[in-house]
Amino acid sequence: MKNKEHILIIGAGLCGSLLALRMAQRGYKVTLMEKRPDLRKEIVDSGRSINLAFSDRGMKGLRLAGLEEKVLPLCIPMNGRMIHNTEGELFMSPYSGRNEYINSISREDLNIMLLDECDKMPEITMLFNQKCTGVSLETGEATFEDYKTRQNTTYKADVVMGADGVGSALRKSMLDHRKFLFSYGQDFLTHGYKELSFPPGADGGFLVEKNALHIWPRGKDMMIALPNLDGSFTVTLFLSWEEGKDSFESLNTDAAVLDYFQREFPDALKLMPDLLKEFKENPTSPLGTIKCSPWHAYGKVLLLGDAAHGIVPFYGQGMNSAFEDIHVLDKYLNKYEGDWKAVFKAYQNERKEDTDAIADLAVDNFHEMKAHTARPIFQEKRKLETAFEEAFPKEYFSKYALVTFREDLRYSEAMRRGRVQDKAILNLIHDGKFTESMSLHDKLDLVKQETRKMLHDDEVVEGLEEE
Amino acid sequence: MKNKEHILIIGAGLCGSLLALRMAQRGYKVTLMEKRPDLRKEIVDSGRSINLAFSDRGMKGLRLAGLEEKVLPLCIPMNGRMIHNTEGELFMSPYSGRNEYINSISREDLNIMLLDECDKMPEITMLFNQKCTGVSLETGEATFEDYKTRQNTTYKADVVMGADGVGSALRKSMLDHRKFLFSYGQDFLTHGYKELSFPPGADGGFLVEKNALHIWPRGKDMMIALPNLDGSFTVTLFLSWEEGKDSFESLNTDAAVLDYFQREFPDALKLMPDLLKEFKENPTSPLGTIKCSPWHAYGKVLLLGDAAHGIVPFYGQGMNSAFEDIHVLDKYLNKYEGDWKAVFKAYQNERKEDTDAIADLAVDNFHEMKAHTARPIFQEKRKLETAFEEAFPKEYFSKYALVTFREDLRYSEAMRRGRVQDKAILNLIHDGKFTESMSLHDKLDLVKQETRKMLHDDEVVEGLEEE
Repeated sequence: MKNKEHILIIGAGLCGSLLALRMAQRGYKVTLMEKRPDLRKEIVDSGRSINLAFSDRGMKGLRLAGLEEKVLPLCIPMNGRMIHNTEGELFMSPYSGRNEYINSISREDLNIMLLDECDKMPEITMLFNQKCTGVSLETGEATFEDYKTRQNTTYKADVVMGADGVGSALRKSMLDHRKFLFSYGQDFLTHGYKELSFPPGADGGFLVEKNALHIWPRGKDMMIALPNLDGSFTVTLFLSWEEGKDSFESLNTDAAVLDYFQREFPDALKLMPDLLKEFKENPTSPLGTIKCSPWHAYGKVLLLGDAAHGIVPFYGQGMNSAFEDIHVLDKYLNKYEGDWKAVFKAYQNERKEDTDAIADLAVDNFHEMKAHTARPIFQEKRKLETAFEEAFPKEYFSKYALVTFREDLRYSEAMRRGRVQDKAILNLIHDGKFTESMSLHDKLDLVKQETRKMLHDDEVVEGLEEE
Repeated sequence: MKNKEHILIIGAGLCGSLLALRMAQRGYKVTLMEKRPDLRKEIVDSGRSINLAFSDRGMKGLRLAGLEEKVLPLCIPMNGRMIHNTEGELFMSPYSGRNEYINSISREDLNIMLLDECDKMPEITMLFNQKCTGVSLETGEATFEDYKTRQNTTYKADVVMGADGVGSALRKSMLDHRKFLFSYGQDFLTHGYKELSFPPGADGGFLVEKNALHIWPRGKDMMIALPNLDGSFTVTLFLSWEEGKDSFESLNTDAAVLDYFQREFPDALKLMPDLLKEFKENPTSPLGTIKCSPWHAYGKVLLLGDAAHGIVPFYGQGMNSAFEDIHVLDKYLNKYEGDWKAVFKAYQNERKEDTDAIADLAVDNFHEMKAHTARPIFQEKRKLETAFEEAFPKEYFSKYALVTFREDLRYSEAMRRGRVQDKAILNLIHDGKFTESMSLHDKLDLVKQETRKMLHDDEVVEGLEEE
């Protein structure tokens, strides 16, 4: 048996800890470096959202590491979007007509579970309070500053993997490197976000529907809430930094905040006793997309997860895509193990197109969630799609279902098919092509026919261009 | 009359010198700073391509400054693409069926003409050998290092405009600024470029057709040549950095270079006595797209031209888009003069969409030029489009014509219409929808009908999303 190599992983968050686990399972010697303290021993402000949407693509990664059973107790199923209008009326829009659901999960609980699993592997050494200050791409040497001692230590490994998130130190070393061309983009939305909360009820129960992702779509702004196991909800307000009447800039007094919530979210306001304190004390954070290429250099370093592709949260796919990264990487390790350059190249060659797709879909979904969910034609579309999925569960998948539940399908393919299908349905509704005399299956056939025509047209051009 | 303000312009290249001229014409006091020596007095290696394509949008900017007559003597009209196959056979593909043409122009000659015009304006002070080392966005203070004395001097102006190209110092100050969110992307092609040349004939004449842009499309690679007034041609080889059989990496011996040229460009090789020397001595440069936003900050600074939107050269629109920038800025000065924030905001609000479009079109055209121009279905499309333009000059405009010759149309609109039209024609050809019995106008009607249907479908969705 071949003597397995040493992998240094930067970042013991969700992506880094699962990656460490999987690499150790494959027999590599792993050193896992984390800049924050061990969150099992100290209270850590991750600076990131408290709970996350966990769904089928994420499960693929956990299943690969044998953790399917361990994650289930941490999950709260969310069956659909519970839409709240300004009158406080509710409207439930299921995620699919096949009873499919996504889950709310605590970032911290999941990270603790993964770190505990890492502890069980003798191949893994974990070091906390180690901030990466730079990586030498050609040699695989990485330097870390210890937060407590302030001492710098350089580690050398056969391979360095950066799972160190949107602010990745490895990516920074690649961007600053003079000798190769690094394509890089950071793209911010006009909106930022602030986390708030609904506390649990007096009896520890949930004060609004537990099994839903709550949305208050307001056209320009939006608020959402996801349930936590303790009966509380984490609430996130998405608001423009400075444009328009209401913005983080203009909501600069208690009175302005209260007036805004009374106007826009009266039903939520009743559940937010700490609103003014939280609004003042909790940070306002930017929403950005990071894309870059190449993700690897010299067969020595590789970026994964948010470090390679930071996305906005609106498709609930940030963690899921990071876990799917590990699944794809593992596939190419099966194929090319022993030749890191070949592994990295094949991995990026497949994966980049897909993470670009989910990045773009996530931005699209921002607009869909904050505006479209509240509008008649989109509600009519959603109703029709749910009916298709209920009646013909194997024949029809909405774009949301293609992206979220069809973990057998690549993001890029889900995007391509989903976008064309959306365009087809919206046009058919808009042009009044669905008549009352048509059966549901007639309507489905019409959607399929229109979608096929549009896909054909795209494929001809793409085929010609790629020849 | 209002006492006009002081504008400091960084960069006295094509964009900066025309901008200075126009601002001076409007009555502003202008200081124009250039990091290189005065190219009228010293030989300057601009590090940029020697000649450029100049067309209708660029003329809009020059006309605004009253320079239409001055630029004409510098222009060599190019009526189309002269395509060279590996057998050395030629095939002329006109740019339009309306006898429209673009021009080859010397960067240096044009820059000299613009600097000479600046000299005539008492409102303009020009300083050379001044490298900008940073701009304070809030105050409009910019610091420059004098190349000769090495001394730093800080200038304060009411407004600082960065026309300092793809490596913009002002843009760097905006990217490094902590207090506002700056979206930024640099995106490199897999190919780099190297400039070579055909010398003039013994009699000073042109050794290949003077009035054409010559292309040697080779699928993965491409070479082009543009005429110069002295009878020479500037030749540019576009080749992969490292991928594939032939690349800048693999062409590392005289024998390899010669073998490659003999195989791919035998007719050109005969015109290149200095090939091996030039190939060795001339730099290989990257091809990148730069996008960023916002272009302005605090009503004090503004990016224009390549500094705001660096594009690849394949649509011949780099300089043209920079000159059109000045035309658009001037329009908003007419509207909001006195309120810089309003001017900058309105300017970017219109212009960003258009420069994003030309950036994307330029990348598309890279693929079209190196591969499609050599292929039957694209040649059939081009032939049909030229026939439409000849027979129905007011009814039909190819994508190329919409982008290049319809200076009344925004780039974004040219892209939208042009892309859909291309897709329609390619599908109609591919699916055999043009039959022999059809008249040319029947074929045009079919293209129009298909294009209209596709545009309608897009507009419904876009309209719904923007509502």
